[in-house]
Amino acid sequence: MINQKRVELLAAELKKLGLDAIYLGPSTDLEYIGGLDTHPDERVRGLMVSKDCRCFAMTPLLYKEEMVNAFGGVPFYAEWNDHEGFTGAFRRGCEHLGVVGGKIAFNDGVRAVDMLAVRDAMDLQMCNGAGILDPLRSRKDEGELAVMREASRIVDAVVGKLLDFIRPGMTERQIAKKIPEFFEEAGSNEISFAPIVASGPNGSMPHYGGDRRVIEENDVIILDLGGRYKSYCSDTTRTFFTGTPTEEQRKVYEIVRQAQAAGEAAVQPGATGQDVDRAARQVIIDAGYGEYFFNRVGHGIGLAVHESPYMIEGNDRPLEPGNVFSVEPGIYLPGKFGVRIENIVAVRADGTGEALNHFPRDLDSVCIRG
Amino acid sequence: MINQKRVELLAAELKKLGLDAIYLGPSTDLEYIGGLDTHPDERVRGLMVSKDCRCFAMTPLLYKEEMVNAFGGVPFYAEWNDHEGFTGAFRRGCEHLGVVGGKIAFNDGVRAVDMLAVRDAMDLQMCNGAGILDPLRSRKDEGELAVMREASRIVDAVVGKLLDFIRPGMTERQIAKKIPEFFEEAGSNEISFAPIVASGPNGSMPHYGGDRRVIEENDVIILDLGGRYKSYCSDTTRTFFTGTPTEEQRKVYEIVRQAQAAGEAAVQPGATGQDVDRAARQVIIDAGYGEYFFNRVGHGIGLAVHESPYMIEGNDRPLEPGNVFSVEPGIYLPGKFGVRIENIVAVRADGTGEALNHFPRDLDSVCIRG
Repeated sequence: MINQKRVELLAAELKKLGLDAIYLGPSTDLEYIGGLDTHPDERVRGLMVSKDCRCFAMTPLLYKEEMVNAFGGVPFYAEWNDHEGFTGAFRRGCEHLGVVGGKIAFNDGVRAVDMLAVRDAMDLQMCNGAGILDPLRSRKDEGELAVMREASRIVDAVVGKLLDFIRPGMTERQIAKKIPEFFEEAGSNEISFAPIVASGPNGSMPHYGGDRRVIEENDVIILDLGGRYKSYCSDTTRTFFTGTPTEEQRKVYEIVRQAQAAGEAAVQPGATGQDVDRAARQVIIDAGYGEYFFNRVGHGIGLAVHESPYMIEGNDRPLEPGNVFSVEPGIYLPGKFGVRIENIVAVRADGTGEALNHFPRDLDSVCIRG
Repeated sequence: MINQKRVELLAAELKKLGLDAIYLGPSTDLEYIGGLDTHPDERVRGLMVSKDCRCFAMTPLLYKEEMVNAFGGVPFYAEWNDHEGFTGAFRRGCEHLGVVGGKIAFNDGVRAVDMLAVRDAMDLQMCNGAGILDPLRSRKDEGELAVMREASRIVDAVVGKLLDFIRPGMTERQIAKKIPEFFEEAGSNEISFAPIVASGPNGSMPHYGGDRRVIEENDVIILDLGGRYKSYCSDTTRTFFTGTPTEEQRKVYEIVRQAQAAGEAAVQPGATGQDVDRAARQVIIDAGYGEYFFNRVGHGIGLAVHESPYMIEGNDRPLEPGNVFSVEPGIYLPGKFGVRIENIVAVRADGTGEALNHFPRDLDSVCIRG
């Protein structure tokens, strides 16, 4: 159903920004406002919210039943048929809200090609709607936090199952395929992203997408995984070792462990995303591995696995109670191996951080004994 | 690797359309040109092709290794770092190609929010790049057709496995979850879309997305599924019956079967997508069920599960040899049940149609006997 309270908060944001309306395509923004979980495709659908709290829904006839099930009777339905295209319905919806010619923002669920089709069919001022819902979405309420704690408890259980399951001789793919099963056993019916199982030299690519390599004795394996629980995402990373780590592996692991702990400890009243990034990064720089950690320290998480706030150089907004984000430094040694450790952290009312993940991070707890 | 021959054909299209360049975000267009299979997210990446056959790749530093693995040494790499944002890299790439201020098309892998960020950061004329690659992609060559025949053979095998597997008492979800396993057994490692298992009254929603209902005795079940084989998609629908169909179910099934056959038979030299739509639809209208079939008859298929050409009222372009598309009429009776039958059809050199699916369509072959 449309969440009327959130519509009102969003309308207030629109007024503040001088916008007449925002159009939300299939996206987690749309899920947040209207409870509809769907993905963008050529059947253009979504919801427009005006600054005076009115809504219209774009509805391909094919999806009408599902859209009404999701949104209920709140919005005006602008329907369109496959053979007529969607721009006429979009115009009818804008006329209904009285925003033709106005400043209309488009969110990240809208495809550029569809926005350009609208531009060519009616009069409007296109505005960038990225991040307009961030102030609402990034402050999780108690209900959301409770769900996210449970989501993190589930992913920790999956990590435990993986420690028992992984053995040399398996392929990365065999492990990746097992992960959704483990999530289901642990109480989560959906993964929040394709898990990363990056072994040996593949670990040097932070977002490795392959799955062919066979796990060997004395391997380092990055496992980055997450599930959805009541629509909210979990996301954690542990680095496992088959056999006894080499001296270099021990050293690199310990640096990353300390960097990750430093990032979590930096969550304090008044701290910014940049402060968290710097705190974790400095440990790696001081140890002489700065050039092998080249991405941000973390990302917010909620309905989306990546959302505001970001733990990144340049983000000088103070963290707020209810913010939930990852702290995930790593060291990536090309041709050799990689290490990453990731926990999700929530900001408490007092400004300190509460780690939502509890799988141990010490080296001994991540060594697989076959 | 970048397919240089396809880059040249694309550049010729750009010249024909008076465009200076096209920017391809993560999409099947990008897979077609550059062999990169990835999805849009906030880490903006892609490939620009100019009318003089030059390329630049947008590369977040985090994805550099994977991007180079995919594209090779052909393009200029415009890299960007998480903390600086992507618009500077986009401008550098455009400067390298000499297209600043020019007419630049954006394809369907680009998010509106990212295009608007570029608009606000540099001088360019934004053009709608939807469908620019359609003339290339919709004419499959012999190599592509061979792969798509195999993809369809695999999905037919999965349908056969489902006929043996489905029994009253199972949930839609249990069936849907089994489908990826059956694909893997049959030789396809990835599904091309979340399968639809719509039983009983759920069958009245052509794109039903639920999965909770328990299959009963004397149910009608729509099964719509597809896998990917060597990157190409399959897609087929059969409607199964548990127990003996009622008189109304028999009648509706027979109408849809004849409509589907009529759609396939309409694939003849000179026929258009509209002709195929009309041929199938007329059977349903003549039988008095026109109001219960409210979507298009079919969609093209290839690297994407939905692509050009569409079998739809208003598409008056003649079909061409190498076109591959679905023919999938249905009758959807709200509160009661639905029936849909779908085959993929390829247009032969002589303009007639070759069905790529071979699972039987007669009523007797789709009745489950427990």
